[in-house]
Amino acid sequence: MTAAVSSTFLFLAPNAYSSQTLKPPSLLPIRRAASAVAFPRLPRLVPVRASVAIEKETPENERPETFLRSADSPHADAAAAPTTVRARFERMIREVQDEVCAAIEAADGVGTFKEDVWSRPGGGGGISRVLQDGGVWEKAGVNVSVVYGIMPPEAYRAAKGEAKAAGGDSSVKAGPVPFFAAGISSVLHPKNPFAPTLHFNYRYFETDAPKDAPGAPREWWFGGGTDFTPAYIFEEDVKHFHRAQKQACDKFDPSFYPRFKKWCDDYFFIKHRGERRGLGGIFFDDLNDYDQEMLLAFSTECAKSVVPAYLPIIERRKDTPFTEKNKAWQQLRRGRYVEFNLVYDRGTTFGLKTGGRIESILVSLPLTARWEYVHQPEEGSEEWKLLDACINPKEWI
Amino acid sequence: MTAAVSSTFLFLAPNAYSSQTLKPPSLLPIRRAASAVAFPRLPRLVPVRASVAIEKETPENERPETFLRSADSPHADAAAAPTTVRARFERMIREVQDEVCAAIEAADGVGTFKEDVWSRPGGGGGISRVLQDGGVWEKAGVNVSVVYGIMPPEAYRAAKGEAKAAGGDSSVKAGPVPFFAAGISSVLHPKNPFAPTLHFNYRYFETDAPKDAPGAPREWWFGGGTDFTPAYIFEEDVKHFHRAQKQACDKFDPSFYPRFKKWCDDYFFIKHRGERRGLGGIFFDDLNDYDQEMLLAFSTECAKSVVPAYLPIIERRKDTPFTEKNKAWQQLRRGRYVEFNLVYDRGTTFGLKTGGRIESILVSLPLTARWEYVHQPEEGSEEWKLLDACINPKEWI
Repeated sequence: MTAAVSSTFLFLAPNAYSSQTLKPPSLLPIRRAASAVAFPRLPRLVPVRASVAIEKETPENERPETFLRSADSPHADAAAAPTTVRARFERMIREVQDEVCAAIEAADGVGTFKEDVWSRPGGGGGISRVLQDGGVWEKAGVNVSVVYGIMPPEAYRAAKGEAKAAGGDSSVKAGPVPFFAAGISSVLHPKNPFAPTLHFNYRYFETDAPKDAPGAPREWWFGGGTDFTPAYIFEEDVKHFHRAQKQACDKFDPSFYPRFKKWCDDYFFIKHRGERRGLGGIFFDDLNDYDQEMLLAFSTECAKSVVPAYLPIIERRKDTPFTEKNKAWQQLRRGRYVEFNLVYDRGTTFGLKTGGRIESILVSLPLTARWEYVHQPEEGSEEWKLLDACINPKEWI
Repeated sequence: MTAAVSSTFLFLAPNAYSSQTLKPPSLLPIRRAASAVAFPRLPRLVPVRASVAIEKETPENERPETFLRSADSPHADAAAAPTTVRARFERMIREVQDEVCAAIEAADGVGTFKEDVWSRPGGGGGISRVLQDGGVWEKAGVNVSVVYGIMPPEAYRAAKGEAKAAGGDSSVKAGPVPFFAAGISSVLHPKNPFAPTLHFNYRYFETDAPKDAPGAPREWWFGGGTDFTPAYIFEEDVKHFHRAQKQACDKFDPSFYPRFKKWCDDYFFIKHRGERRGLGGIFFDDLNDYDQEMLLAFSTECAKSVVPAYLPIIERRKDTPFTEKNKAWQQLRRGRYVEFNLVYDRGTTFGLKTGGRIESILVSLPLTARWEYVHQPEEGSEEWKLLDACINPKEWI
């Protein structure tokens, strides 16, 4: 069995992994009333296997030049260019964090980001930035984090296959595998119901060569995506957004956009509603079957596309007059966003169960949301068109 | 292993069980992006074992006299008194539904309940009543349901112990066990931030004697509780509410109130916050180690106590003047309510995963809710006092 962990794990659970506190996997007891024998008696529904424990983060007053261990950043002084993929990825996501936050503040005109910096004794750390109740956005979070952790050997074997995990010799028993992960993740909820919510997340993952399987390779992969969630459809906005994703993809491989567009539609699915939370974009995970430099460049291109893909839409819609009905519909769609994130999003559910930094995990939730009993938009209405597109994903370009 | 199913299952997942569509337990695939190998690779977190499939409910235009199969209600004509516990429990919860709805409408003054009635071909059904955007309540749901289902034999064995399940002879292999369940469940969210939210749920569960284990006993148990969730503490309200619970309990057993009060504090715990969703009340499940008549009377007493426990508080608080800050704090606490229900409540999570009637499952969510990044009430403030009581449950009487 492989893991069911998180599109947004790095953002949402910055301290879900620890290099210090690895414990053997164990079954967490299901939360239940003391002495309760549950009702009606059926097989236990949700065994939760915990493979990691949490090391407490330390707040920092200053942003460090890097969150990397010194061995990973041999030229960590400000002037020198980083050489390792770890260091180059960290530099990229921190640049993107600065760019996106600067663009958001400029467009918002009123709000400013509050910053929280933290580190961990064993290496790694993060920077959370949140703008709340601004002129344009009701809540905007842009976080980066760097994690050093240890992967249980059975997880590594499951992921890579026994033979490969043991360096081609399946008789060699692999021990715990140290890993490195870095990522940027962001959710931007505007106030105006005609201005869409945006989410993006890009991350890089790498394992060290297992110490007791000397021939085993160092593994790496990339994941991420950018998706958007309007409450109303403006065809030109949707086309502009998807075209920006396709342009980023097409620079690298013509198969990327159709493949990652479908992956996105499949991932952000609210199963109990039979509808997606929004109008998609791109999503990919576990990408390593291409040249590593190419994928680093691809992730960079995607992350750098966020501002040109999103900000022009915001500029067009941020001051559109709206009615109470428009606002209520946006709030209902925000309720769906909450349902997806709390019930399905692997980063959120994993973070909540393993005790991550709650405020970082739940910054993805909107400032306000709404649930109405049996709300059904009138057929043919603008609200109905949005819902239809969430139920039946379309090809926009 | 026993089941982790639902304090509010009957309310929330009226069609979670079916007498028609039993299938052998099977592992549901975890929801994930197509072709995704999740990231990072750790053991699968949430295996979900499905023991039941869902039979679609049929909407009805009229409330039937009973949802029971005719064999369970030999005197089902309106004039005759019901004789079986099944029938008496159904009559009780339908009376309580009428009483509570009448009291709510009278106190609300503006809103009226919208009613949905449904039945199932194999027997059973329910009545959902929802009042939305009234004068006093923003959302009030009061539902009853009756379910005929079949319990997989391994679940029955796990619940009762091998020997007992097989009628004292562990060499007898038990087959699937038909069961009956009936319950009332309700969540009432007022508008005024000084008026508390109330939840209550009472249910009765019974298995048939297994057909291929003729000596096995017919099992039964009761579950339920009443808990309340104010945004601000008024000592007289909290004492009045808990005193009403204690009075109902004390009529039957002096151990009930302390035991069920603690059970309630333990159950409604938002683990990732380290706080309860509210100020508790009583909660019990799987209660069968007392006389059946006594427990039927006890459940009836508890359910009949809802109106006198709750309505006087509403009358005192419904018109209290409040500020925007008071409202925002209520909305933040509503956000916690959403977190508990979507992440922890067994009825909700079970209902969502098994495809129950979504609008009934999620009617427990408030009309509106709010999430602020790193909101911390000032120490000593009224908001802080509420939060403190949610973190450190108190003895109120």
